[in-house]
Order: sequence, then C-alpha cells, then structure tokens
Amino acid sequence: MTSIDLNADLGEGFGAWRLGDDDALLDVVTSANVACGFHAGDPATMHRVCRTAADKNVAVGAQVGYRDLAGFGRRRIDYARTELRDDILYQIGALAAFCRAAGNHVRYLKPHGALYNTAAVDPLQAGAVVDAVLAWDSALPVLCQPGSVLAVAAAEAGLTVVGEGFADRGYLPDGRLVPRSAPDALVHEPADVVDRAVRMAVSSEVVAADGTVVALPVRSICVHGDTPGAVELARAVRAGLDSHLSVRAFA
Amino acid sequence: MTSIDLNADLGEGFGAWRLGDDDALLDVVTSANVACGFHAGDPATMHRVCRTAADKNVAVGAQVGYRDLAGFGRRRIDYARTELRDDILYQIGALAAFCRAAGNHVRYLKPHGALYNTAAVDPLQAGAVVDAVLAWDSALPVLCQPGSVLAVAAAEAGLTVVGEGFADRGYLPDGRLVPRSAPDALVHEPADVVDRAVRMAVSSEVVAADGTVVALPVRSICVHGDTPGAVELARAVRAGLDSHLSVRAFA
Amino acid sequence: MTSIDLNADLGEGFGAWRLGDDDALLDVVTSANVACGFHAGDPATMHRVCRTAADKNVAVGAQVGYRDLAGFGRRRIDYARTELRDDILYQIGALAAFCRAAGNHVRYLKPHGALYNTAAVDPLQAGAVVDAVLAWDSALPVLCQPGSVLAVAAAEAGLTVVGEGFADRGYLPDGRLVPRSAPDALVHEPADVVDRAVRMAVSSEVVAADGTVVALPVRSICVHGDTPGAVELARAVRAGLDSHLSVRAFA
Amino acid sequence: MTSIDLNADLGEGFGAWRLGDDDALLDVVTSANVACGFHAGDPATMHRVCRTAADKNVAVGAQVGYRDLAGFGRRRIDYARTELRDDILYQIGALAAFCRAAGNHVRYLKPHGALYNTAAVDPLQAGAVVDAVLAWDSALPVLCQPGSVLAVAAAEAGLTVVGEGFADRGYLPDGRLVPRSAPDALVHEPADVVDRAVRMAVSSEVVAADGTVVALPVRSICVHGDTPGAVELARAVRAGLDSHLSVRAFA
Repeated sequence: MTSIDLNADLGEGFGAWRLGDDDALLDVVTSANVACGFHAGDPATMHRVCRTAADKNVAVGAQVGYRDLAGFGRRRIDYARTELRDDILYQIGALAAFCRAAGNHVRYLKPHGALYNTAAVDPLQAGAVVDAVLAWDSALPVLCQPGSVLAVAAAEAGLTVVGEGFADRGYLPDGRLVPRSAPDALVHEPADVVDRAVRMAVSSEVVAADGTVVALPVRSICVHGDTPGAVELARAVRAGLDSHLSVRAFA
Repeated sequence: MTSIDLNADLGEGFGAWRLGDDDALLDVVTSANVACGFHAGDPATMHRVCRTAADKNVAVGAQVGYRDLAGFGRRRIDYARTELRDDILYQIGALAAFCRAAGNHVRYLKPHGALYNTAAVDPLQAGAVVDAVLAWDSALPVLCQPGSVLAVAAAEAGLTVVGEGFADRGYLPDGRLVPRSAPDALVHEPADVVDRAVRMAVSSEVVAADGTVVALPVRSICVHGDTPGAVELARAVRAGLDSHLSVRAFA
Repeated sequence: MTSIDLNADLGEGFGAWRLGDDDALLDVVTSANVACGFHAGDPATMHRVCRTAADKNVAVGAQVGYRDLAGFGRRRIDYARTELRDDILYQIGALAAFCRAAGNHVRYLKPHGALYNTAAVDPLQAGAVVDAVLAWDSALPVLCQPGSVLAVAAAEAGLTVVGEGFADRGYLPDGRLVPRSAPDALVHEPADVVDRAVRMAVSSEVVAADGTVVALPVRSICVHGDTPGAVELARAVRAGLDSHLSVRAFA
Repeated sequence: MTSIDLNADLGEGFGAWRLGDDDALLDVVTSANVACGFHAGDPATMHRVCRTAADKNVAVGAQVGYRDLAGFGRRRIDYARTELRDDILYQIGALAAFCRAAGNHVRYLKPHGALYNTAAVDPLQAGAVVDAVLAWDSALPVLCQPGSVLAVAAAEAGLTVVGEGFADRGYLPDGRLVPRSAPDALVHEPADVVDRAVRMAVSSEVVAADGTVVALPVRSICVHGDTPGAVELARAVRAGLDSHLSVRAFA
C-alpha cells in the first residue's frame, strides 16, 4: 500500500454544547466523519465544519446515527429496516446540503456508535445502511470494520467498501474489536498507538490482544477526537503515517 | 394567464401521528409542499410522499419551518440569521435525498407557519430564507405571499418568486391576509372558495373583506388539507380551475 | 372478585397531532394511563387530561415510555439501568405536577409500548422500572402483565403489583400474549371481546388460542383507544363489566 | 441585611455533553438553579445534581426554560400563555421527582435565558410563569430581576419574589441590565466583580455604567459557571461575601 487515509469523528457538538476540537482535527485528518443531527451535530456546526473541511481539502463523510440525541447514538434501537434506511437517507441529504454550499459533496458514509456496532453484526441494520446508500448513490463508499456483516452486505450489493482500523483499540484474534468492557479494549501508550497505526497502514495487520498477528485490510485509520490528549495523539499518528506513506483521503 | 398551479401542505404527520390525507391530496394538487422534519414530517413519511408525488407527477417543494415539533412551527422563534439559514438548508437537503431516491428533485421552497408569516414582514428572517436558497441553488423558486418582505428580498437577490393566493382566506385592501383572529379571516362557503380561486387564477385579483377588488399576482393557489372537508373542497377548487385554465405545476 | 378496573391509554397526542378520543374514553374507563411526554403526550395535553380525569373521578396513572417521539416508544432501546430509571422518574414527576394542579396525584404506573414488552421479559429494564417506583414512592402500584419479569421483580421489591388483562388480545397457554405478528394476536369480534373481558374480570381466566383455559389474575382490563371503533368497543366492554360487577379504579 | 444567597445555573449538560463544572460549583453556591430538560439538562444529570445538592445542603431551584435544546433556551419563542404555563409546570414537576428521590424538594423557581429576559418585560410570559407557580404551589419563591414585569406580576399574585443581582453584569441607571450587545455589558475584572457582589449584598446597591448609584434590592447574587475561570471567580465572590455577611440559601 502506498497511501492511507486518516479519519475522525467531527461536528459532534449540538447547539451550545461542544465536543472535541473540530478545527484542530481538521488540520490532522484527511477524512472527517461529520455528525448529521440525529445523535449529534446541528445545522450551524455542520455548515461550519463542511466549509472548513472544504478549505482544508479534507473529505467529508456522513457520520450517520440513530435518532437519539440524549443517548448520543450509543444505545441500540430496534428499528424497522425501512425506518432506519429513511433516517439514514435523511441525514445524508442534510449533510449534502452543507457540502453543496461549500462547493463540495458527501464523499462516503460511516455509521456511528450503536449503529456502527449493530450493523457490524446484524443483517437487518446492515441491510438498512446498504439500502440507504443504494437509494442515495451506489457509488458512495461505506467506511466500516473489515469483515463485518455490514462490510459483507455492502460488498454483495456492489457498494465500495473501505475497511478501517482503530489505532487505539485492542483486537481479537478474529479481527474484531475487543469489547469496551474488557481490559484490553484500549491501547493507552501513545507510542504503541502510533506503531499500530503504521503497521495497519503499511502491512495491513495488527497484533491482537493474545499476541496473534491478524490480517486487517484497511484503507483508513480512525483516531478519536473527544478524549483528553486526543488531538496530540492524532497528530502523532499522522506524523507516524506521514513518515511511511502518503496520507490522503480514499474518496 | 393560461395556467395555474395548485399547492397544499403534505407529509405533515410525525411518527405514529397523521395529519391530513396525503394520498387523496396528491390526486388533486400539482405541487406538494412537503414538511421536512423540523416542525412536522418524519423521514419515512417524506420518503413515501416523495415517491407517490413522483408517481403522480406532482412537483415537490420544501415546506421548511422552525425547529419546533411541539409547536408545529406555528410559534415565532427569534433566530439569528445564520442559524435560521442553516436550519432551512438542512431541511432542503434532507428532502432532496428523498426526491433523489424517487428520481426527482426539490422544485421549490415554501416557508411554513410562523416562518411564513414572519418572513413576510421581517427582513432578518426573510434574509435567512434567501440566504438558504442562494446556498442551495439560486434557481430554486420561492413560493410566497405577493408583495411580502420575503417576496421583495428574494426578487432583489435574483431569485425566482412565485406568488400564491389562499382560496379560503380573507384579504385586506392592501393585499395582505386578514389576521386569523379577525372575523373575516376565513371564507367558509365552498362555492365562494372555488369562485375566489378561479378569479385569482384567471384575473389575478381578489375581493377584499371591505369589498375592494385587489390585484393579486399569483401563479399558484393554496388549499388546505388538514381540516374537515378539506379534500372535498380541494377537489372542488381543482374542478373549478380545470374548467377555466390549465392546472399544472409552475416548476 | 367484586370489582374490576378498566384502563386505557390516553393523552397520546403531541402538539398539533391527536390520537384517540380522550374525552370519550374518560367517560368509559376508571383508570387513565396518561402519556408523559417521552413517547407521546405534551404538557398542554397532560394538563387537560389530568383536569378532566379529576372532574370525572378517573384515576390517573403514569404511562411511562422510552424517549422516542418518532417511534412512539414502540422501538426497543438498550438503556443503561440508571438512565432508564431516571427517564421514568422524570416522567412520573412531570405528570404529578398536572395531577397536583388538578388537586390530585399519580395513582399508579404502567409502562408503555416497547418498555412494557421489554420489562416483561428483561430483568435490567424491569429493574429500572422498579428502581424508579422505589425512588418515587414505594406505595405506587405497578400495572403490568401477570407473571411477567416486571410483575415478579416489583413484587420482590415489595411494590404493589396490579395484573391487567387485554380484552382484545389473544393469549398463549402460558398466560403470555400472542405476538402481534401471529394470526391469533387480536380478537376481532366485539361480542367476543366483551365476553373475554367479563370472564377475565369475574373468573380471572381467559381461553388461550389453543382452547386451553388459562388462569389470569387481573384487577384491571385494558381497552385500546386509538383504533377505528375503539370507543364503541370500550363502551361495550364497560357495559358488559357493569352488568356483572362493580367497575371502579383499583387505586 | 445579615445574610445573602449565592446562586448559579447547574445541570446544564445534556446526554454526552457537559457544560460547566457542577461539582465544583456545588461547593461554592448556596442555591443551584437546575436545568429541567427543556433547554438543557437530562434526567440522569438532574438526578445526580439533586443528589449532590442535597448532600451539600445546597437549595435546588427549577431553572425553567423554553422547549429549545438546539437554541439552549436563548431564542425568544412566542408561546400562548397556557402552553408556556404547562411547559413550565411540567419542568417543575420533573425536577421535583429528583428532589424527592434525594429526600428534598424544589425550593424556588428561576426562569432561564430568553424566558428570563422576556418575562422581565412581557406581561404574557410573566403571567405564564406566575400561573405555573400558582398551579404548583403559591409558596414557591420566584427568583428574578428586581423591578421586572415578572417581579411585579408575581408580587401582585401574592407570590414570594426574591430579587437577584448579577455580580459580573453592568447595570443601567434604571436598574436594568446593560444589553449584552453593549460595551459595558460585562464586568471583566475579578476584583470588581467581587466588590460589586459585596456592595449588592451589604448595601443593596450597584454602580451603574454611567456612575450612578442604583438601589438594587437583592437577596441573592448570581454567578456564572460556564465560562473560563468561572469557578475561580465564583469562589472569589463567595469568599468576599463570606467576609461580610452570612451566605446561605434564601429558601
């Protein structure tokens, strides 16, 4: 691989509330997963982030989630498939308006929170994501966990699937993430996070919690933006990747 | 004038709640003002209405409103201009996604409720509507009250302004609507409603509450869909218009 | 048994949207499960229903649900236990304010929709309901499905549990409801609905879908208010019950 | 005067979003204006703040606001009087549930944001606040601007009115606040803020922007919690007050 993308969640404030440092991250990442108003994100924030992303040549993706501001999209909701499809399609369209106002367009989709986790294992919700993308534009890439139910369903539907790796998360030997409740869920040491990101990007592999080397076909590395020290860590990951390959948006 | 448009508010349910008979109205009108989720309308309803409208060759317009589900967009909210612009832009984009899924696009914009009334008199809110349309597509027509602050601001900004008349509302001698609190606010007799609609369409004039004949340059007639007998009245207006001129969408 | 309660869901409109005929039902039932604003119900509706209920001597219960207006509380949401407890406690308190304004108080709690169904089988959500009641007032009765996980958990916590039967729903031989997706989920014939209600009330039993006679210890019969003919059916059930025993609120 | 109260807005986060440092402020103030979920505040936050306030012997007041999470209650909304009354009553009741769970009760009411400002000048909204308090408990004190329309209306209705002063805000010669858009709106120097607070508390007066000494009958001083350095400033105000008189809740 000669290039890698670096993505992060952005625009996750709502009204008077802020979360993360959007401006700082937009200097670090090549792809911005912009919240679309259902679990986070308000129109003014979306507009501002889309404008800045366009100025900085950062690709904007639709960070779509459940309609659950109070739960930040982190609580699983049992949607009917068409309802979920329509909630997702609505969000893509809303974000597209701000991309359009910035002379740009939505370049990919990434599910958020409980939708990300559920679509990774549940055919109904994975199907709803696929349906939404098909209804919008079958050329829109889906950024997700390699090997997940969503990745498989999207590929089967003819969509472009982009695998992503989490630089700061532990992995199981089968390539899935260590659950957040388990001790090895997070990689805490910044140098380790950078090393893992580089190895994912350069060699498409990660060392699992049990020491196994696992193949992980990723074209994007995800960093987080809403924890203390997040921006510094993201910068370190970016610097590490920069020293090994070209860092640029996949879309 | 040789043709006239007939518009109505549609898709104004939310979740389990219904309002009006969307399917029946879609057989009557030529333009559907579809609620976009902020004061009414949910994604599933928007999808369904946009699909049916496409099937029936009814033009879809963005019925944009305040973020106020509890108030149905009928309570004035003092927005900052950019906030309101962004709320409107968000709604247009969301609706556009469903039009796109139906192989179609948003053909015009019409403000709803308190936004309609406020933008008719308030330069800040009128300006926000204009800003949103400019950010979306300066070719998108704005459906509004002839002579209103919004109509003037939109025209000055180079937008296409489409004047509309209300078949069942009383008018003041200066062309504005009789306030809803006044006795002559509504025209109750169905035959009168039809006659007034035809006169507006054919002669671009209306008889005001004081008997004055007022010039009213309209290219669309608005009928309501959420009151008892509304569908029947809309059908009668449509039949009356059909017998005098061609009824078709302006956009 | 010498008396029985008749309950129905009320106050389930929101803003401009109405659902069911609250005023008509308040002449029929002895207990009103009033929606508290999270899945349905707005403050003005709650105030009006609580006032009318007080005037008509109908007991008011808190119809608590998930925070999901768009889904009408019918979609399961995976809450943390304390989050759900607090959402429920909030709703009880809000309703209590309107009862207080009417010189009254909240007389019982009944979970709504997906919370009702989930708490009937899931210890975490049943526990959250119990926690909320304990935090509010351990003397507040819980109206629920006899034998459900909630019924058991509430009884173990020392709460007053009131079993309810659904006059128009089919039952399984083990006393649970036939799932709505199954053919025997609903009893359609009004005379059958009345007969079943009377038998539940008088003999504490119901004939299951397979013909088995099932013991069903109920002190309240639930009728629905939001379907065509619902009010007429509720009146018929009331008349049937009136002819066999005293119909009055359990609380 | 021998005692003074110190109040601040608390519990103004929502879901994943935080605003201000509730725990730190609860060590400084004697009265906590707790957001009730309409413009800010979620049930879990309300529960936590009410519990901590009870532990620290801080009085809890209902910080009631418009139903406007996206606008943080800072945008004026034109409510009907009964609608606004019911929205306020709902919020008081919801907060009361968490006070009750903490073995406590709501000790006063303070309007938030645009409701505070509007009720200070508008008889309809002031009347709605008064109506809500009367419906809840006519003994519930109302914390507001001395001399405001709300203060007068509440007093006329027989309510207990508690005047408050803003330590960090400029005043006009007539006792009203300098509008936020004006240059003298804020007092920036911490020592000045402390001095003004002490003078308000001890002498019931404040020096207006034009140098005039204005009588300001206050029983509570408001400090802010959501700006950089806010907690430190609040501590300094508290220390200043402590050195001159007894600082304790008015209710």
